[in-house]
Amino acid sequence: MAQEIERKYLVQPTDFSAISKKSVRIVQGYLSSVPERTVRVRIKGEAGFLTIKGIGSASGASRYEWEKQISVEEAKELLAICEPGVIDKTRYLVDFEGHTFEVDEFYGDNQGLIVAEVELESEEQAVAKPAWLAEEVTGDAKYYNSMLMKAPYSTW
Amino acid sequence: MAQEIERKYLVQPTDFSAISKKSVRIVQGYLSSVPERTVRVRIKGEAGFLTIKGIGSASGASRYEWEKQISVEEAKELLAICEPGVIDKTRYLVDFEGHTFEVDEFYGDNQGLIVAEVELESEEQAVAKPAWLAEEVTGDAKYYNSMLMKAPYSTW
Repeated sequence: MAQEIERKYLVQPTDFSAISKKSVRIVQGYLSSVPERTVRVRIKGEAGFLTIKGIGSASGASRYEWEKQISVEEAKELLAICEPGVIDKTRYLVDFEGHTFEVDEFYGDNQGLIVAEVELESEEQAVAKPAWLAEEVTGDAKYYNSMLMKAPYSTW
Repeated sequence: MAQEIERKYLVQPTDFSAISKKSVRIVQGYLSSVPERTVRVRIKGEAGFLTIKGIGSASGASRYEWEKQISVEEAKELLAICEPGVIDKTRYLVDFEGHTFEVDEFYGDNQGLIVAEVELESEEQAVAKPAWLAEEVTGDAKYYNSMLMKAPYSTW
């Protein structure tokens, strides 16, 4: 399976609604966050989703995934019983010199945090950096969504 | 809300397929078994179900429940990633002198265990006992399905 190569950066506050080609509000929580069997509830724009994943194989090549679309109403009810630490963010897609940056602007307990991810074809590939891009935080676990639930930005 | 009054009994080995009016094989496991948010996968006969429940209110009067029918194939895939301790049993409905007994005959790690439940209208209501009914175990936590997953009959 192809390996995903992504770099993650902190981002300076910017009016992304003005420069993004697309944006969507994402609210998500977990009914189970243990890696062997995660059960995620997500509202993405006007759709709800229930997603169940098994643990990845040792090689990382495969991970069982089951997903069903549900109504936003059902998703809201399920979010109400999720583990504490629901993630609430707007995801903006911003094109810059041949790459698309996925910018996540967080709300709630992670208000003030903005991160951007860009997918690369190789680890060596150069990325032209927009002015709003700040420090690289690739691989820093405290920026994982799963960590931001348990130890949100406001508690750092 | 009406209170359920049920009595539970151990049962002597009997050919229930001959005396029951109805029977169904039930296989179930949990993706999450914490009381605040249980996620149960069940195959009941030819149908699969995914059932999510919140914790009961302090009064016990209400508990949020969400259920979707899924295919048996999907349920089998989801059972494969459930917490250890899948419950496998046949449920027989057996009529006896005006009451219907729900008899659960267990397989797998609970092989050898057979229990019967009967619903009553009041705690004082008398129950005519069929010959195969043995010791009463009402309220004994080790016979709860949730306990039989973690501490199955074969380990007692």
